[in-house]
Amino acid sequence: MSCHPLDPASPDEIRQATDLVKAKYNGISLHFKAAGLEEPPKAALVDFLDAEHHGRPLPFIPRQIFLIWYIEYTPRLFESIVDLSAQTIVHHKELPRDFHGPVDRAEMNEAAQVVMKDPRVQAEIKRLQIDETTVVLDPWDYGVDGEDTQTRRTQVFMYMRNPENNDPDSSHYSFPLDFMVIVDLCKMEVIKIIRLPLGSDQTATAVGSAVPHRRTNPVEPEYDHRLQKSPPRTTLKPYQVIQPEGASFTVNGYLIEWEKWRFRVGFNWREGMTLHDVSFDGKSAFYRLSLAEMFVPYGDPRNPIYRKGAFDLGNVGAGVTANNLQLGCDCLGLIKYLDGCVVAKDGSPAPRPNAICIHEIDNGIQWKHTNHRTGKATVVRKRQLVLQTIITVANYEYIFMWYFDQSGELTFETRATGILSTQPIDKEAKVAWGTRVADGVMAPYHQHLFNLRIDPAVGGHKNSFASTDTVPLPWDEDLNPLGTGFITQQQILDRAGTVEDDISKGRVFKILNENVQNPVSLTPIGYKLVPHRSQMLLARPGSWHSRRSEFCESPIWVTKYKDRQLFPAGDYTNQSLGGTGIKSWISEARDSVRNDDIVIWHTYGFTHNPRVEDFPVMPAEMAQVRLSPYNFCLFNPANDVPPSTQAFNKSVELNEQKPAKQTSSGCCSQPKSHL
Amino acid sequence: MSCHPLDPASPDEIRQATDLVKAKYNGISLHFKAAGLEEPPKAALVDFLDAEHHGRPLPFIPRQIFLIWYIEYTPRLFESIVDLSAQTIVHHKELPRDFHGPVDRAEMNEAAQVVMKDPRVQAEIKRLQIDETTVVLDPWDYGVDGEDTQTRRTQVFMYMRNPENNDPDSSHYSFPLDFMVIVDLCKMEVIKIIRLPLGSDQTATAVGSAVPHRRTNPVEPEYDHRLQKSPPRTTLKPYQVIQPEGASFTVNGYLIEWEKWRFRVGFNWREGMTLHDVSFDGKSAFYRLSLAEMFVPYGDPRNPIYRKGAFDLGNVGAGVTANNLQLGCDCLGLIKYLDGCVVAKDGSPAPRPNAICIHEIDNGIQWKHTNHRTGKATVVRKRQLVLQTIITVANYEYIFMWYFDQSGELTFETRATGILSTQPIDKEAKVAWGTRVADGVMAPYHQHLFNLRIDPAVGGHKNSFASTDTVPLPWDEDLNPLGTGFITQQQILDRAGTVEDDISKGRVFKILNENVQNPVSLTPIGYKLVPHRSQMLLARPGSWHSRRSEFCESPIWVTKYKDRQLFPAGDYTNQSLGGTGIKSWISEARDSVRNDDIVIWHTYGFTHNPRVEDFPVMPAEMAQVRLSPYNFCLFNPANDVPPSTQAFNKSVELNEQKPAKQTSSGCCSQPKSHL
Repeated sequence: MSCHPLDPASPDEIRQATDLVKAKYNGISLHFKAAGLEEPPKAALVDFLDAEHHGRPLPFIPRQIFLIWYIEYTPRLFESIVDLSAQTIVHHKELPRDFHGPVDRAEMNEAAQVVMKDPRVQAEIKRLQIDETTVVLDPWDYGVDGEDTQTRRTQVFMYMRNPENNDPDSSHYSFPLDFMVIVDLCKMEVIKIIRLPLGSDQTATAVGSAVPHRRTNPVEPEYDHRLQKSPPRTTLKPYQVIQPEGASFTVNGYLIEWEKWRFRVGFNWREGMTLHDVSFDGKSAFYRLSLAEMFVPYGDPRNPIYRKGAFDLGNVGAGVTANNLQLGCDCLGLIKYLDGCVVAKDGSPAPRPNAICIHEIDNGIQWKHTNHRTGKATVVRKRQLVLQTIITVANYEYIFMWYFDQSGELTFETRATGILSTQPIDKEAKVAWGTRVADGVMAPYHQHLFNLRIDPAVGGHKNSFASTDTVPLPWDEDLNPLGTGFITQQQILDRAGTVEDDISKGRVFKILNENVQNPVSLTPIGYKLVPHRSQMLLARPGSWHSRRSEFCESPIWVTKYKDRQLFPAGDYTNQSLGGTGIKSWISEARDSVRNDDIVIWHTYGFTHNPRVEDFPVMPAEMAQVRLSPYNFCLFNPANDVPPSTQAFNKSVELNEQKPAKQTSSGCCSQPKSHL
Repeated sequence: MSCHPLDPASPDEIRQATDLVKAKYNGISLHFKAAGLEEPPKAALVDFLDAEHHGRPLPFIPRQIFLIWYIEYTPRLFESIVDLSAQTIVHHKELPRDFHGPVDRAEMNEAAQVVMKDPRVQAEIKRLQIDETTVVLDPWDYGVDGEDTQTRRTQVFMYMRNPENNDPDSSHYSFPLDFMVIVDLCKMEVIKIIRLPLGSDQTATAVGSAVPHRRTNPVEPEYDHRLQKSPPRTTLKPYQVIQPEGASFTVNGYLIEWEKWRFRVGFNWREGMTLHDVSFDGKSAFYRLSLAEMFVPYGDPRNPIYRKGAFDLGNVGAGVTANNLQLGCDCLGLIKYLDGCVVAKDGSPAPRPNAICIHEIDNGIQWKHTNHRTGKATVVRKRQLVLQTIITVANYEYIFMWYFDQSGELTFETRATGILSTQPIDKEAKVAWGTRVADGVMAPYHQHLFNLRIDPAVGGHKNSFASTDTVPLPWDEDLNPLGTGFITQQQILDRAGTVEDDISKGRVFKILNENVQNPVSLTPIGYKLVPHRSQMLLARPGSWHSRRSEFCESPIWVTKYKDRQLFPAGDYTNQSLGGTGIKSWISEARDSVRNDDIVIWHTYGFTHNPRVEDFPVMPAEMAQVRLSPYNFCLFNPANDVPPSTQAFNKSVELNEQKPAKQTSSGCCSQPKSHL
């Protein structure tokens, strides 16, 4: 095997692994749920990476694949680790019955067929006097309600296509039906049909037909341009990015180098894109970076909506749902695509081509200074390298992007777009937990809570986590005579736990290496975490939502690194009962985390109370988390980015009357008299 | 006069106005400090704009110029309003002695010459054993220290050029000297020379020579590439934006139209770029938007640094300091420039060519949805219109940008860049209020506090300001049986005052028009204010810094609109004594602000505790404030943006092995089997 230990599992490796497992179960039908690289234990990988960085002979690391699977149509869930180097199964475990594997599209499709064939469902469709061929099903991972949670289930929300076009790409979320269906996934049969509440009270009061008043709606129900009432606007002129001399980055397998940055990209079924062994300016910065989990709980308190609370990574997978990114659609300029691979139900590899795209952007000005004495201006533009992946989880899309900046800053951006999950509502009715986004259509309030896992290696693997407040000095005739002074107070976390935010104190979070002093500042080298500040989980403590999503209680958690502690809501989140997440790890062992191998977990998100502007498709809502060097370098690492010049940038002045200005001292001089 | 009442003052108008004032003072030498459009009173302008929007005959509005000036070398300060239509002075007032006009470059340069000629300064330079020709002076607006504040002064910080090159564009901030000078601006003579403190204690303890240990510095002291030790990196390949069919926006004088937006741009000496009469999708949104003030107080408590606290707008002016933006340097693509004009000391117009640049950018994905049932993906890119202005205030640069988005969102971005204001520090010494950014060079902690003035006209001029919290429902067997429910609680502000933030409640700030109901949501139309959440002023209550910068106490202020209440730290901020700002207005009259003509003032900023990465020039630090439609439209206003296609975008795949994919149904289809 000549690949790097961090390279994602290849299609061939996935097939080898499932073949080995299948061989053990000769003849018994298995339902594969997940397969991907079992990353090497940190101790072994650190040795390997050290050898690699220093050009020493590389130690052998066995190549292993992690798998999750059911015996088909049973609740019997297994996990395995297959060692491909030795062609053996090195770990094989049946999980207890209250653990459930992720959902998958094949299973959901089968459940949808079961629903449509059920005579009780047929009767409901007949009641609504709608054409059966217009009905669209939206199966969801089943939430936990405290009873009957041990069997494998899906909850199926019901919609219809736009009756005016009955097109396969009609946005059915504009036409919600007033009932939903619960399906048993082992027996593959309908358990229950539930009528949805339509008024402002808690009780389900179904009307006799598909809500008709939406026909008079001023709202455009379609996002697909082909189906919209009016053609798209014609005002927008083309905007193209050209890179005549090629890209400034190099890609070597999954190793990427760009402007003082060097790192590896990983990909797996659950987290999708991951970053590894990230260094800047020749110095180690991060061991591993990944979106580790997300939870989307809904605020409508009524049955059956109260069960909507999806762990889109643990229950489905950001790799599984990764879009096939297309040239000219998802980014501009010169683009490199990386492929991933997950597993199909039958164990065959399911490639995820173009799951990650890599390109450069220009993000305005990096730095500028004008010397007013000479009129000389120096401008440097802010070039960034972007890694993007996009996932589709039923109605919603999430765009995840890493921006690498020339200044040593690394930004993780989340964009939430796609379509609101909708329900029917009576004409004129209003509810306290949702927004009317069209006549007869209500979008309930909900949250999107993400957790970014930061495994730092700031100048080495022994790091500390500090909160630094900026506080006023007390009045003092000698020491602070005008009452203007302020200083910083730094607190370093000793034990694993949570860290609270306090904007009023200008709190700054730093990952420090207390063993390495910056010779300029005479303080430890570090990286600053700039969180996305947001509201935490609204569901009540003790609720199933709360017990299952421990990471959503606090914006920042710090733990001591442990192999296989990757997922802060636990390894198995689907229909989970809680108690297996980050809070549990911490309460079990209050580990020391100062000057140790630590992991930082940042929870952030959106409380999304829909606006009508979010319908029928939602303009992306953005959140950014930043990691910035903090006395990590010796001086501004973007100081040597060449000046911005017209010769390089070839911009065009709109008003052609003015001649292009290009003076002898570069394009950025300006009159000296100017302030 | 055929110009629009909101068009900035032209060079000719400024000359006419100063001529009229000069004529009144025949022979007496005046020192003009500021001149610009006196915007019409709101009542008159609203009438005019209404007539303009409805194609009715336009009422006459007199064209007026506001001026500030001194009788030269005296403390006698005047303000005037000249009516150019009537060619008369309609307002003329001498201000009390504790009011001071803004500083200007001519005056600062004169003060610098006075400093260099002073024998005591010559002696200090001799003491330091440095070449006089290498010395560079950095005059600052003089802070208030509670004594002797009535005379016009400047405080001059002293630096030298890099002794290795003695180049006019050497970054002297890398070579601070150990003394500073205070100059009387009326007498134009040195008042005092002060030795700077160099250790960690409060007392000024000067060493005998220019700090020599910086010679061994590993830090690059120069930002100018020509002077750097090493040549710029060569890794960065060109990245060019081409717009073969032209721009999507039109500029007609100062009227700009782009993608459902229509607005006017203004420009004045103090605020620089302003926006007026902003409508989206045919509906009024904002009457006037501007950066209204900024304050930069320093945290070093010692004499004389404790006086550093600059109001960069009121004391200097964002229009006065506006950069002459150059093609290919400050933006990419197809660029339109707008000019401004301020006044020179002698009353002649001082043009500010290319003070504002206008261009489009591509900001990634606006919205996307993949129908997993058909594999059809629809992607719309996020085109934005950007208006940018950049100011240089001595060492610092500020980049101010308005981003107009197709989704109806308006973003105000602030980028802080340029050079840290530095002081000398002893070898090995550390201080609690600053960072060593190079050997012998300390950059004190400081704050940048900005105030964005938002004069809304959301569907009309009568608006309200609401804070909406998202709060959990209590547990209830019937109403919230699983403890998952949450709702919003809205509070509308009744009286002028401050509004506090609370992220833990997911607090959202909205400007509502309670007179106009959205027919879809059945709630008032509105715009959401997404603040930049930051620490407020650190200087102690009662300190001069605090008294002078009332707006820095709270992130959000709401007042009832009053003509000429534009500047939240008062009209005259230079050497100000406080009591003339927003807090004073509010305490004087607790106006009703519900369903009234209101103004929202948002204070935000950075507590900037320098990093070594901020030296010798600082990578831009960014803050964004957003204004988003909130049930303002009937549905997503970007729904009709055409789909992103390769035919339009012409991207290039880096890895040419793969053929470009372009399928019949557009470029964005993907395999159906995919989740």
